[in-house]
Amino acid sequence: MELNYSDRMGGIKASEIRELLKLTVRPEVISFAGGLPAPELFPVEELKKVSQKVLEEDGQSALQYSPTEGFPPLREKIAERMEKMGVKTAADNILITNGSQQGLDFSGKIFLNPDDIVIVESPSYLGAINAFKAYQCKFLEVPTDNDGMIMEKLEEALKTKENIKMIYVIPDFQNPSGRTWSLERRQKLVELANEYNLPIIEDNPYGELRFEGERLPSIKSIDTEGRVIFLGTFSKTFCPGLRIGWVCASDEVLNKYILVKQGADLQSNSMSQRELDAFLDVYDLDEHIEKIKKLYKSRRDLMLETMKEHFPKEVKFTHPEGGLFTWAVLPEHVNARELMKKSLERNVAFVPGGSFFPNGGNENTMRINYSNMPENRIVEGIKILGEVIKEELK
Amino acid sequence: MELNYSDRMGGIKASEIRELLKLTVRPEVISFAGGLPAPELFPVEELKKVSQKVLEEDGQSALQYSPTEGFPPLREKIAERMEKMGVKTAADNILITNGSQQGLDFSGKIFLNPDDIVIVESPSYLGAINAFKAYQCKFLEVPTDNDGMIMEKLEEALKTKENIKMIYVIPDFQNPSGRTWSLERRQKLVELANEYNLPIIEDNPYGELRFEGERLPSIKSIDTEGRVIFLGTFSKTFCPGLRIGWVCASDEVLNKYILVKQGADLQSNSMSQRELDAFLDVYDLDEHIEKIKKLYKSRRDLMLETMKEHFPKEVKFTHPEGGLFTWAVLPEHVNARELMKKSLERNVAFVPGGSFFPNGGNENTMRINYSNMPENRIVEGIKILGEVIKEELK
Repeated sequence: MELNYSDRMGGIKASEIRELLKLTVRPEVISFAGGLPAPELFPVEELKKVSQKVLEEDGQSALQYSPTEGFPPLREKIAERMEKMGVKTAADNILITNGSQQGLDFSGKIFLNPDDIVIVESPSYLGAINAFKAYQCKFLEVPTDNDGMIMEKLEEALKTKENIKMIYVIPDFQNPSGRTWSLERRQKLVELANEYNLPIIEDNPYGELRFEGERLPSIKSIDTEGRVIFLGTFSKTFCPGLRIGWVCASDEVLNKYILVKQGADLQSNSMSQRELDAFLDVYDLDEHIEKIKKLYKSRRDLMLETMKEHFPKEVKFTHPEGGLFTWAVLPEHVNARELMKKSLERNVAFVPGGSFFPNGGNENTMRINYSNMPENRIVEGIKILGEVIKEELK
Repeated sequence: MELNYSDRMGGIKASEIRELLKLTVRPEVISFAGGLPAPELFPVEELKKVSQKVLEEDGQSALQYSPTEGFPPLREKIAERMEKMGVKTAADNILITNGSQQGLDFSGKIFLNPDDIVIVESPSYLGAINAFKAYQCKFLEVPTDNDGMIMEKLEEALKTKENIKMIYVIPDFQNPSGRTWSLERRQKLVELANEYNLPIIEDNPYGELRFEGERLPSIKSIDTEGRVIFLGTFSKTFCPGLRIGWVCASDEVLNKYILVKQGADLQSNSMSQRELDAFLDVYDLDEHIEKIKKLYKSRRDLMLETMKEHFPKEVKFTHPEGGLFTWAVLPEHVNARELMKKSLERNVAFVPGGSFFPNGGNENTMRINYSNMPENRIVEGIKILGEVIKEELK
């Protein structure tokens, strides 16, 4: 029996990262593949307390259906955090989602018809590419450098291509490259989006994890027309298992996201929203984030030093000022997918970078995560990876 | 500024029920509108214990990313429950979703191209209609009676219409009508779906809440070809706030749902899945369900008795053997939306039935919930509703 699926299913493939993660769950594997936070910093004890508090004080409501938009006090607190990031907004402009991945899916649903073009950084986040593909779009990759997307190239694309429907960017500690956009590029992006009347999806899962250099204003904070849709998440600053992200957008645009959420899953988890809200009442999230940044900075330093020492000189890699990833470029003839097979035989995993280019190519790249592995395994894994690469370059 | 949205957004409207629920949160309102379970039976104390247990024994994993498919021991337990319902299946055929609403959205995404036809019962569940509409489908409503969808009418439709892509049904204590399909109709439906090679979406949120009469086999248990996709949920038997539902389907079909879940939100809540799993280990869900059934039966009895006494004789209503709703049909000239405005003025709410007919009409119908209000408010609310209806019939 073969059922008739929708046309869109032809374009939906398994996320390579997710499939890969399945191979890396063996405890002997040193994995730089996932984008997993350091679990030793998860606030387990704090959650024990707040889960009791929520069930004690508000148990029946915490287990009942609740509004699509999200738990009002939590929306309030998120709006306040956004204000601190320079975005003038209100609780009414926040929708709680199941992680920011859901915000990506909704963005595709709201803006894309088949054959519409999404502008993305080259490379861009694989999960976003997969989410948008479900809406049968095409991708236009705009080249990037250490300051983010190259604006001349973007302008050229906007001038010459029709059917462009939205621009998707990760301006802070980008996934996969670890790079951060300069202020000038951020301003220019908003200008161009205004000129061409396009929505910008600003995906910002890592922005609060800056451990070096100065914070730059979010693109949403530069927007004066309500065309930037900001996707935030607590997955990297609190924990990913509770699946709490948010969309921040203007009234008109947010209303579309709310409508789509109604049909997609009615609402996010009532209990987890209250737990996070209680956590934010009782504990200091910013203090907690300081601990995360300290740990990630030391892991980044250790990883980059070890890479410098053990990777061949031909391999170039980025110096992220925050976030979870560095990005390595190998000599052009090296195929990182083949490399991955060999490194997995030696129990070390990373993500081959080709998956982050929706139109293919760039198989000589790799995304390497430094947040999840303890220090000794970072050193050991990078040494092995260095050996595997050297073997390949012979 | 007006952004360009996708074509599908033209067809997506706010769920009338959700909008209505906002008006009914005032504590003075006696609401028969929502499909809310009785919160006094939520296992609050049990959850306090299992949440501690999960965080104590497995805290870091419970807060980390976890597999798209769901927490393996929970999938195992759901497969066992499905077996008890007569469905031969395995943990590998279960995907955990954010409530069964997410299973509805995914079904639309997987099977529907624009202008494809979905066959539904007339009336059908508003949330499903809204979920499918996002994929720009059309609806063919097949008439129903007390035994479910009328098979002669279905066969006629299948013979004469092209572009039919799936059949969506709620065979047990249907939402909104409260009716249950006969065994013969279930068997015939599977036969016809086999003949026309169509998938059947069997939405079964209430099947375990039968408090009268004999359990009938699920449509999935009759299927021999793997074309029935069963949507289950713990929202009505445990609690809705944790948003745990599931899809049960054949390997090939489930794989599509898993792919779609990856792009839609990566995975469901890691913590809540473990809490439910621990609850099922420590407590007896079936015993808990017995308590729910006992309460709902007594509320149904009370409501139907009060309706018999206080509603004018011209109003007909169903006698549900389980589930959460009864369905009333008023004389044709009465508009239930107008009626609702008047009853809300007197602080009583229900859902006007017209919303459950995707192609319109039938404005003289109402869905009335009996699970959520305590006994005294059921009597008071039905009396007021009776008065408002009598006023309208004058």
